[in-house]
Amino acid sequence: MEQFLKPVAPGKAYRMFNLGATALVGAAHEGVSDVMTAAWNCPLDLDPCKVTVVIDKSHFTRVLMEKSGYFVLALPGAGIARETLYLGSVSKNDEADKLAKSGAEFFDIPSFKGIPLVRGCACYALFRIIPEPHNQQAYDLFIGELVEAWADDRVLRDGHWDFSGHDALRTLHYVAGGHFKQIGEPLEVEL
Amino acid sequence: MEQFLKPVAPGKAYRMFNLGATALVGAAHEGVSDVMTAAWNCPLDLDPCKVTVVIDKSHFTRVLMEKSGYFVLALPGAGIARETLYLGSVSKNDEADKLAKSGAEFFDIPSFKGIPLVRGCACYALFRIIPEPHNQQAYDLFIGELVEAWADDRVLRDGHWDFSGHDALRTLHYVAGGHFKQIGEPLEVEL
Repeated sequence: MEQFLKPVAPGKAYRMFNLGATALVGAAHEGVSDVMTAAWNCPLDLDPCKVTVVIDKSHFTRVLMEKSGYFVLALPGAGIARETLYLGSVSKNDEADKLAKSGAEFFDIPSFKGIPLVRGCACYALFRIIPEPHNQQAYDLFIGELVEAWADDRVLRDGHWDFSGHDALRTLHYVAGGHFKQIGEPLEVEL
Repeated sequence: MEQFLKPVAPGKAYRMFNLGATALVGAAHEGVSDVMTAAWNCPLDLDPCKVTVVIDKSHFTRVLMEKSGYFVLALPGAGIARETLYLGSVSKNDEADKLAKSGAEFFDIPSFKGIPLVRGCACYALFRIIPEPHNQQAYDLFIGELVEAWADDRVLRDGHWDFSGHDALRTLHYVAGGHFKQIGEPLEVEL
């Protein structure tokens, strides 16, 4: 287990995804696993926390999600932006050694169904797929309900994000063509 | 029309929403209009550009969306963070003069179905609702297909975001309790 990972209270897990950051999507089935990048993920409900994620039919990861019924969303930090771009650019359909060749380092959380986790993410959440065949077929849209979430407590503590002093964990917001924005400075507002 | 607004090519409109920013959602029907804040919006398809947005049944805006079949998503800049918080905190069900009392300034784009647009956003996009009654009822999830998009070309030009020198237009990423992050610095990656 990674040194700084702490469990996230289920009622505050939506705050992981409220930033709208690009995620790594992981899945595993019968010893086969994959991790890909998906900018199109979004909270759907507060408690129990649900999310949506868009996964095209061409992706190897999608088959593992459909067979296992589970997926992980993790938010890669700026320190692994190159690995994130690789995992989103190369398909395991074309490159069987994709994970090894990505340059990413992997670890496990025992309860996370054997799904490989990429070191250097701000947080990690396991979801159970709520089957919605029409959404999956017509829109490539999957809905997940949270099983368990962990976050690096140097940047997400008690539901509060604070990236100061930890630039390598700033969330990435993908635009196109290898171009990301990093999450920036806080802004506090009172009515 | 706002001075710096230029049309966005439909094939690049998804880049408006790829950042995962908090949006203002506007709708109008038979002369009644509302604008509310929704952090939970996400691209769904590239071209034609589709998006998802989560709008709870308690919101006045939702009724206008359902009756008219259209909504606008606009990305408020940091310069109107207080107005954004107000529009997301106060319901027109409780405060009929919500828009006037928000402190926001409004303008129109003639083709935008009479939906009021808040000055100070980085971009504005009109969507036609693709009716999906199960998603709307079970998950409060609406799917929209792009009709037309406009962006402030000081920050979004040819599909490229560049906020340097225009901090007031940096997108907002809502966490909770009046706490936002602003979008930060670019990060270019090559494989």
